[in-house]
This record gives sequence, structure tokens and C-alpha cells, in this order.
Amino acid sequence: MFIESPRYTERFGSVRMSHVQRVISLDSGMRRRPRSRGTTGVRQIDEETIRHFEDRMAIVIPTKDEKLRLLEGVISGVPHDCLVIVVSNSQRERVDRFRMEGDIIDQLCRFTLRQALMIHQKDPAIATAAMDADYSDLLAADGLVRNGKGEAMIIGLLVAKAAGKEYVGFIDADNYFPGSVLEYVRNYAAGFSLAQSPYSMVRILWRYKPKISAGLYFRKWGRISEITNKYLNSLISTKTGFETEVVTTANAGEHAMSMQLAEILPFASGYAVESQELISLFENFGGILPTEESKVIEQGIDILQIETRNPHLHEERGNQHLNDILLSSMSTIYHSPLCDREVKQAILAELISQGILKDGETPAPVRINSPLSRVRDKFVSAIRRDLDKYYVLR
Amino acid sequence: MFIESPRYTERFGSVRMSHVQRVISLDSGMRRRPRSRGTTGVRQIDEETIRHFEDRMAIVIPTKDEKLRLLEGVISGVPHDCLVIVVSNSQRERVDRFRMEGDIIDQLCRFTLRQALMIHQKDPAIATAAMDADYSDLLAADGLVRNGKGEAMIIGLLVAKAAGKEYVGFIDADNYFPGSVLEYVRNYAAGFSLAQSPYSMVRILWRYKPKISAGLYFRKWGRISEITNKYLNSLISTKTGFETEVVTTANAGEHAMSMQLAEILPFASGYAVESQELISLFENFGGILPTEESKVIEQGIDILQIETRNPHLHEERGNQHLNDILLSSMSTIYHSPLCDREVKQAILAELISQGILKDGETPAPVRINSPLSRVRDKFVSAIRRDLDKYYVLR
Repeated sequence: MFIESPRYTERFGSVRMSHVQRVISLDSGMRRRPRSRGTTGVRQIDEETIRHFEDRMAIVIPTKDEKLRLLEGVISGVPHDCLVIVVSNSQRERVDRFRMEGDIIDQLCRFTLRQALMIHQKDPAIATAAMDADYSDLLAADGLVRNGKGEAMIIGLLVAKAAGKEYVGFIDADNYFPGSVLEYVRNYAAGFSLAQSPYSMVRILWRYKPKISAGLYFRKWGRISEITNKYLNSLISTKTGFETEVVTTANAGEHAMSMQLAEILPFASGYAVESQELISLFENFGGILPTEESKVIEQGIDILQIETRNPHLHEERGNQHLNDILLSSMSTIYHSPLCDREVKQAILAELISQGILKDGETPAPVRINSPLSRVRDKFVSAIRRDLDKYYVLR
Repeated sequence: MFIESPRYTERFGSVRMSHVQRVISLDSGMRRRPRSRGTTGVRQIDEETIRHFEDRMAIVIPTKDEKLRLLEGVISGVPHDCLVIVVSNSQRERVDRFRMEGDIIDQLCRFTLRQALMIHQKDPAIATAAMDADYSDLLAADGLVRNGKGEAMIIGLLVAKAAGKEYVGFIDADNYFPGSVLEYVRNYAAGFSLAQSPYSMVRILWRYKPKISAGLYFRKWGRISEITNKYLNSLISTKTGFETEVVTTANAGEHAMSMQLAEILPFASGYAVESQELISLFENFGGILPTEESKVIEQGIDILQIETRNPHLHEERGNQHLNDILLSSMSTIYHSPLCDREVKQAILAELISQGILKDGETPAPVRINSPLSRVRDKFVSAIRRDLDKYYVLR
């Protein structure tokens, strides 16, 4: 693949965040060409490098009652050498959708000689493992894992760790184009190959997100991302004293991280998870609040943002769903210790003007799960003991 | 990639046409797995095999006043090792769109360290070369190459031959997803790797062709292809005495062929070209009409039809445009010496019911350009002499 070199990298304490880099073409052939970084501003990521990272990567697909056809298509686009981990919170009563998902994944795996793992979010064994590892953060009042995307991601991370993977990428299950999924994963690999630190994260920016009305309209920005990016940038700007537009992927569902970074990161509950990741990194390693992870500070943290070549065409969600995402993302910013009075006021005004909050209301804080590093070993060994039962092909 | 084995191959004289094969997943990793053809019915096409064919393939992109963004996206999806040949019939007066296309391709080629060729359909040098090679089939009354997609494809073929390529694939310029383009070309390579004869053709069937109305509706069949396939199958059925549904790609704009096959094939003018290719093969090598190509008869001709994993999302065309395609495709069937009275009657009834012909009218015959084998050497050497001036990067 050919990808732009990052034109500028902003530094906040130990965090290095690069401005968005565009994918220029999807493939760069089998022959390695002489690198000419300085002159063209473009990097060739060769096939061997991409495969190196794919081989070490798990792709976690959180899903909940998604169309089976879409889920199957998404999996069919994941590069073969990645380990697929589906974390499903689909219905089991009446129509057992979880079982239907299992059937379709089993069939695909058989045909493509690949193994995959599949876990239900409410599997009591996961809840028991969490309890035994003293990680009740994850559990709801009924003793099972809470609902929510953030929670599904945590389960995926733990399973990936148990399976020995070094990188984890997340892919949403509602994508119409398997070819886009293929690109996202290749972009993750490209990003990791460009990172300097073992603590690294790659976040995907869609080139266009077509909106279907009378015809197709190729929007660049969704309403949610536009707003979340803006306030996340404000949060940073007020701390550094320099206005920035560096954050363009605040709500990136498509993102990936090294296992080393995943283990020290707190994950917010539900749909706040993607923006909270960035805020936690700025809080913990941005050089303003104190931190305990001296090893991380030494190596630094790389955040790369990559703009795809493909547009992103996914299942349309209702307005209520979008408002939920916006409210929880904004809440993570609002409640951050980095957030000063001025930004808080602006956030409230924005949410009121969007009709999401009423005058005088403030966003409820989002629950944040503590980092896995504390509980990792015990939790992961419990899952590893059971790992066989999650494999799709027996 | 993983692809279904062809479940059944029909034979008509020397023509072997396989029923459609589905792509099951886009990638099959770097490690070759033991083949188990018999048991699973699925073939793994490894990366090395795909690259082998890509390296020998030219991708011809016929275009006429297409959105620049789409053209650029399409080229960015073509695997790097293929030679890109753009044959443009875009406007040169007032706004010089051909020049804008050249600028955008130049920029992309510079960034991605690749070479491409770009020719205007009305370039007088091509017309002169055609004249000198005694191939006036291609020329209009004004002495320049005629308008039409078939004509653009012929120019592309000749340039590919001059550049020493052994395979030519065609890709339409109006595709919204670079990742789909990548898949088409990889499917061509997979198809050629499965063909036994040096005379081979790969035709793409889209898995879905989303229709945009209130939302997205994932149609399997377009109106045009459904009708053309039906009558092409009738044409074959009446000759063999067995009803068949083998043809599912009568209007496949996305298709590829070995240069050896391209050289012996007559190409129809305009939009009739894709269906005429199949009809010509049935006429010349189907075992019913006499043929002169004994070498071809010995080796046989392989036609593979591959169903993509990605949906196909392209620029919507008006109804008039679709009717033109339908009329010219049906005309090629109607005027074939293989077409008996019964099929002719059915075609007329269909075109009348579609409101394309009036009662008593018959479709005008489509002009058919004679095969290139006769003029090849002279024509190709003339183009080869000028080849440098068509390279985008100087």
C-alpha cells in the first residue's frame, strides 16, 4: 500500500499524535522499491510488513442482533492470517440469533480453512472469570457482564491476550463492503509498522460516509464525529495554549492498538469507549496530571490516524442512537479533570442546542472500567483454560 | 483468496463455460495450505499465483467525461503490478477534461511510483495507425476512431499488446469503491489460474448491485442483465436441446481475457461488446458453424464466471442509457446466425413490451469490428513506435 507520511505530529507529554495520513493506493505490488521518504512524502508499506502484523493481530467484532449477511461479509473481508474473535450480545431467547451467527461463522470457517473464536457477552463463564479475578467493574447487578460495546471490546481483548496475540483491531459488524474491512485491517498493520513505540494505536477516518437520500451524497463528516472532534480538540487546546485540529477520529469504531497499550488503558462503558480512550491517554500521559507508568513515559505513546481509500457504507441507525453516542462521548470530555469551565459551558450549550439536554441539566458521568493490567494474569488464565470451547471449529 | 470450485462446466464444441463461482473470502494469507479440492469444493488461490498473473496483466479503463474523483479512485484500487491503460473519449474543447484526467493520473502515478498509459480515443495517431494497418473498421467518416466503448477496448488491447502484456482486464471508471476494483482484478487473476487453455476469459458477476431509493436495496440482478442473460441462454438451449442457465454475465463490463483470445475475437461496437464476445465465441467455436482456427479448437476456450464478495456501487445512469445497452445487446443475439425463428420472435416481443421497439420494427444490426489477428503486427508496431508519448510519467 502507499500511504502519506504524517505531515505533522503533535506532542502532549508522552503522547505523540499524528495528523491524519491518507491511503493513496491499496496495493504496492510484490517488489520493494527504493524508499524516497523525503522527496515524495509517501511511504510504501510492503506486503511482507503488512503480513507480519496481520499474523500477530486479533480482529474483534462486537455485534448485537446485526443482519447475518453483514456479519458474514465483514468476517469474509478480514485478512486470513488475523484471528477473528466475535463477541456477540445477540438475542438467545425465542429466536436464538447467537446460534444462527455461530452456524454462519462455522460454515465460513470450514470453507476457508480458518479458525475463529466466538463468545457471548452474557456467557456466565466470563462473568465468573471476572469475579474470580476481582474485576467486578465488568458486571451488572445480575452478576453477568454488562451490556455495551466497551464491555464487548474488553472481552475481546482478554480473549485475544489468552490466544497470544500482540495487537487487537476492532471492526464494526454493520459494514456493507468486505473490501473496506480488508482495507481497515491493512491500514492497522501499516500504522503499527510506522509506530515507534510498543504502546501504539491506529484510528481510522473514513474518506467518505455516503448518505443515502434521493441519490448518494458523499459526506466527509458525520454529525457526531464533527462535534466530538471539535470539543476534544478544544480540551487539548486549552491545556497547551495552541489551538489544534489534530483529533479527527474521536468516535472511530474502527481502531486498533497494541496489546501493551490496551492493558494500561481504562475503557469506558458503551459507546463512550472510543473517545474515552483518547481522553484517558491525554489524562494519564499528557504531562499535565501525574502518572505512575514510568516505562510508558520513557517509550511514549503513538497515535496514528489513517484516512481510508474506500468510502464507508454501513447500516443506517436512528437519530436516538446517534444522540446516545453523542451524549456519552461529550460526557467523557465534560467529566475529564482536564476539562476547564469554559469548555464545560460550551459542551452544555452544544448539547442543549442539539436538543439532547434541557437547560440546567448536565451529562451523567459514563462508567469507566479500570485498566486490565491489574487483573490481567488471573482473568486471562481463566479464559485460557476455557479457550477451546470458544473455537468455532471443533 | 478462497473461491468455490466450478460446480459444473458446460461444453459447446470447443467452448467450456463454467457456472458461476463465488468468492468466499478476499484473502487466504501467506501460508499455502494443503489442497483438499474434493472434500470442500473450495480452492485457495495463493498470493504468489495472483501476483504472477497481475504482473502480466494490463487493466484497461475506458472512460468518457466520468467524475475525476471516481476515475482516480478506480485507478488507486488497481493492484500495483498491473499496467494501467486509460482510454479516454472525454471532452477536449472548452473545458479540457482529458487534460484534467491526465493531471490527476500523473499525480497519482508520481505518489505511487507507478507508470500508466493514457490515450485519447480521437488521437489522430491511432487513426493513422489503423489506416496504415488496413483496419478501417475502427474509423468513422471523419477519419478518426469511432465513438463507443467497444472501440476504446480495442485501442486498450492494442496498447497492452504493444506494452508486452499477456492478459487484459477491463474495469469501468464509474465505481465508487476502490476496494471492489482491487477485488475484480484479483478475481481475474484467480480465474486465469484456474483456466486450462491459453484462450481464456473471466467475467465478473456482482454479488449485489445496491439500488438507492428510500434506503439501500440489495438487488441481485439488474434489469438489463436479467433479460440479456435469458435470451443468450435461450440461444444456446435451442441449439443444444438442453435448457441452460449457464450465462449469468452477458453484460459484464468487468471482464478480462488472455491476449491470445483477444486477438481472435471480433468486438462489437459500443455497448454491445460484452454480449457479442460470448455470441462470437459460440458462433466460431461452438461446434455448429464452421471454423478455421484449428489451434484454438485443439486447446479449447475457457470462460469462467466469478461472483464477487463485494457489492457493486456505481454511478446511476438514466433509463435511456440502459435501454440503449439492452437494445444493442439484444440485437447481437437477434442477428446471430445461431438465432432461430422462435428466439427472434421472443426477442421482438420482449423489446416491444419494454417499450424499446414498436410493433413491426426489428433491431438494427450492430457493427462488428473484425478480429485483430489479421492486422495485429502492423497496427501494434505503429503503436509501439509511439508508445513513449502515451506514458503518463515522462
